[in-house]
Amino acid sequence: MSRFRIFYLLGIMLLFLALMMLIASFWSLGEQGPDRMAFLKAILLTAGVGFFLFKLFSGATRKELSLVENFTLVALAWFVAGIFGALPFHYFGLFDGSFIDAYFEAVSGFTTTGATLLDDIENIPRGLLLWRALTQWLGGMGIIVLFLAILPRFGFRSMTMFKAELPGPIAERLVPRVVETARRLWFIYVVLNLSEIILLIICGLDFFDAPTHSFTTMPTGGFSTYTSSIAAFNNPAAEIVFTLFMFLAGANFVLYFRLIRGDFSIHRNPELCFYTAVTALAVILITADIYNLCEGEIFAALRLAAFQVVSIITTTGYATTNFDAWHHFSCVLLLGLMFIGVCGGSNGGAIKQVRVMLMLKFSIRELSNLVHPSAISSIKLGDQNLSEEVLRPIMGFGFLYFALTVFATLILNGLGLDFETSLSAVAATIGNVGPGLAGVGPLHTIPIRSFLPWAELCSPL
Amino acid sequence: MSRFRIFYLLGIMLLFLALMMLIASFWSLGEQGPDRMAFLKAILLTAGVGFFLFKLFSGATRKELSLVENFTLVALAWFVAGIFGALPFHYFGLFDGSFIDAYFEAVSGFTTTGATLLDDIENIPRGLLLWRALTQWLGGMGIIVLFLAILPRFGFRSMTMFKAELPGPIAERLVPRVVETARRLWFIYVVLNLSEIILLIICGLDFFDAPTHSFTTMPTGGFSTYTSSIAAFNNPAAEIVFTLFMFLAGANFVLYFRLIRGDFSIHRNPELCFYTAVTALAVILITADIYNLCEGEIFAALRLAAFQVVSIITTTGYATTNFDAWHHFSCVLLLGLMFIGVCGGSNGGAIKQVRVMLMLKFSIRELSNLVHPSAISSIKLGDQNLSEEVLRPIMGFGFLYFALTVFATLILNGLGLDFETSLSAVAATIGNVGPGLAGVGPLHTIPIRSFLPWAELCSPL
Repeated sequence: MSRFRIFYLLGIMLLFLALMMLIASFWSLGEQGPDRMAFLKAILLTAGVGFFLFKLFSGATRKELSLVENFTLVALAWFVAGIFGALPFHYFGLFDGSFIDAYFEAVSGFTTTGATLLDDIENIPRGLLLWRALTQWLGGMGIIVLFLAILPRFGFRSMTMFKAELPGPIAERLVPRVVETARRLWFIYVVLNLSEIILLIICGLDFFDAPTHSFTTMPTGGFSTYTSSIAAFNNPAAEIVFTLFMFLAGANFVLYFRLIRGDFSIHRNPELCFYTAVTALAVILITADIYNLCEGEIFAALRLAAFQVVSIITTTGYATTNFDAWHHFSCVLLLGLMFIGVCGGSNGGAIKQVRVMLMLKFSIRELSNLVHPSAISSIKLGDQNLSEEVLRPIMGFGFLYFALTVFATLILNGLGLDFETSLSAVAATIGNVGPGLAGVGPLHTIPIRSFLPWAELCSPL
Repeated sequence: MSRFRIFYLLGIMLLFLALMMLIASFWSLGEQGPDRMAFLKAILLTAGVGFFLFKLFSGATRKELSLVENFTLVALAWFVAGIFGALPFHYFGLFDGSFIDAYFEAVSGFTTTGATLLDDIENIPRGLLLWRALTQWLGGMGIIVLFLAILPRFGFRSMTMFKAELPGPIAERLVPRVVETARRLWFIYVVLNLSEIILLIICGLDFFDAPTHSFTTMPTGGFSTYTSSIAAFNNPAAEIVFTLFMFLAGANFVLYFRLIRGDFSIHRNPELCFYTAVTALAVILITADIYNLCEGEIFAALRLAAFQVVSIITTTGYATTNFDAWHHFSCVLLLGLMFIGVCGGSNGGAIKQVRVMLMLKFSIRELSNLVHPSAISSIKLGDQNLSEEVLRPIMGFGFLYFALTVFATLILNGLGLDFETSLSAVAATIGNVGPGLAGVGPLHTIPIRSFLPWAELCSPL
């Protein structure tokens, strides 16, 4: 039975989650935190259910997963990880016993959205804050890429799952063996993580803040251990480090592979150029727009603009200022960036740079075809000619993304939120950004929970 | 020289415009209006320039226009018609001598947008109001379809121009001869117009209001001779007539052809079904939403909802109430309808029902292809299998429509308008609707002029 295989794999995932909770609980044990019992209960339940599934379905056939099984597994994995990941928050009573709120927080973590329901983050035990950061760290590179590095030990392999989890329209064939690829991705992920931790400590962050924030930068997550996010540090040097690493996390990880192999031609990568150009243009426009708000200090304006633009375009969602109070122009530009998102093959969300690029090229070609109907030109990405079979799903994806945004905005409106709040809440969750504008601006706690499922649905895309 | 031919044709158009101004000026002469001299000057200048172009370039070669010539002609025709159509307003001093404002009003008329800069419409001489209504009447069916019925007399013909001007992705071959088709379309247009005038007079409108409003209903224009639009009549029966004729004007005119030929199978037309379903659904949702605002009077709520929904979806832009004061949900739903628009092959604007339908089908196919990659299914419209060559430009069009909306919204924001005003102003002008929400709601005069070129650019699409 194919269902058995999925349950077996979910069992493995839960055992791994329990292991991660155990690591987070060490901090709690070390400082004798009030959250020890919550961790104990959560670990026992997660490991118990995981072990039960693992043992009960261990007789499942070892063979390649089908496409439908893969999609089911990815969807179920996010759902189940959210349920069990919420247990430490729930048992500690973080949301006055509301499991739905704890589930929101966990799913916001695993999907690297970064929207939070907590409004007094400083007073939460540090073990729980570490677990909260770890949910993003795990979710970022994809629970499923992790699966991929471990699965073969148990006799499973899946190329399709890898494609589903590493987003972007064109899966580049990196190294022949998928498992090897997954391991290398994790290697890059961990190296970047450690570099960020070291730089943040040099900038003056302590040994708790540096790793917890690094864990949420690299997956473009955006959870902070402070209610006022990165603004709490009031540390310009650290802000520059954050900006740099958010930008790096938003690039295609395949490029780091190439760098490691000694291939320094990444500046010819068309998506990277587009990503850099869009980011730079947005930073320049916003710097010009907020120049007078910063009392004419050009570097302060530039730093603020760069941080917020990179945070939004990479769908991280950190904030160093209440950008909702900026002029309309900057706000709406940031809202637009929420739809574009990062490069394909990175951790972030939204439509992705390469898709936006190809949608533009596609549309311009159709426009020029109106005038020159006989000339059928193929679309190029760098030196590569793209077939129509690659382009069609991208246009379909783009349309569904807009349609889902409109539909979800209508529902939030119907529930009584104003237009700007609804649209930006949808853009921020569907693109895994986190904070939006107006009622869901960076200074607000998310007021309603009902739009969470969108983030969950879209994250595997 | 190909440019000569275009100028020759523009000359013919100007002569025709002068003729129409002459007709409008009769009203002014009849009531000894203060606008007589303005009309005289405008007619002389328009006819003069027209005759000059007509004579100077009468040596142009008579042969089929090329694709590029057609696009140039269409673009120039809208531009030039706006310039000369603005002259009566300008010479009368309607906007304190601002020619840009007069040009805005004329282009808003010819493109059947219906946005206005006038805030005291009742005090304007009736001759000018009649001319204002006539600009929409002429623009509606397309200055160019008119060209088509006249051109052959001068030795020109063009099928491509017909396709450019009669919007919708699939040009149905109606009758072999294009000229015959154009004449029949005008016949239908005029018959519907006369029917509406008669019904409005029966409902109690006078002999000025009935024709001027009918002239702006059929082209889905929306100019009224009252500042408070249709609400000024306070006449429920007339509102029902307006709702009916706006809906009829939004259907594909090809269907009326079929009806005339005795083909009553139009209920099987997939676009008509989709159009009816979307309209009905929106009316039901909004009726439910505004039920309590109407103090529980279900028929009053239904009439208000139906009028506003049909006015917006057909991109007419009449109003019987300040819908901007409705709940958020209804406002955002109306904003969404502004993007969908009417059926292909009708006078209205926006993306068009058939395109939205096909974009949905396209996207759903791509989604199901993810799970069943081997099954390549073609998309059907009714019984017709559509080729990828038909679908590709539609997806491109949709993307460019959204991209232009975002871009224009950003510019308006940068000029200092708030988000809701900017977005709805763009949606209302790019889709040729007229009034939007917030600062450009049905009770407001359009506050800035800078977004007009969009409407002009998009109208021929």
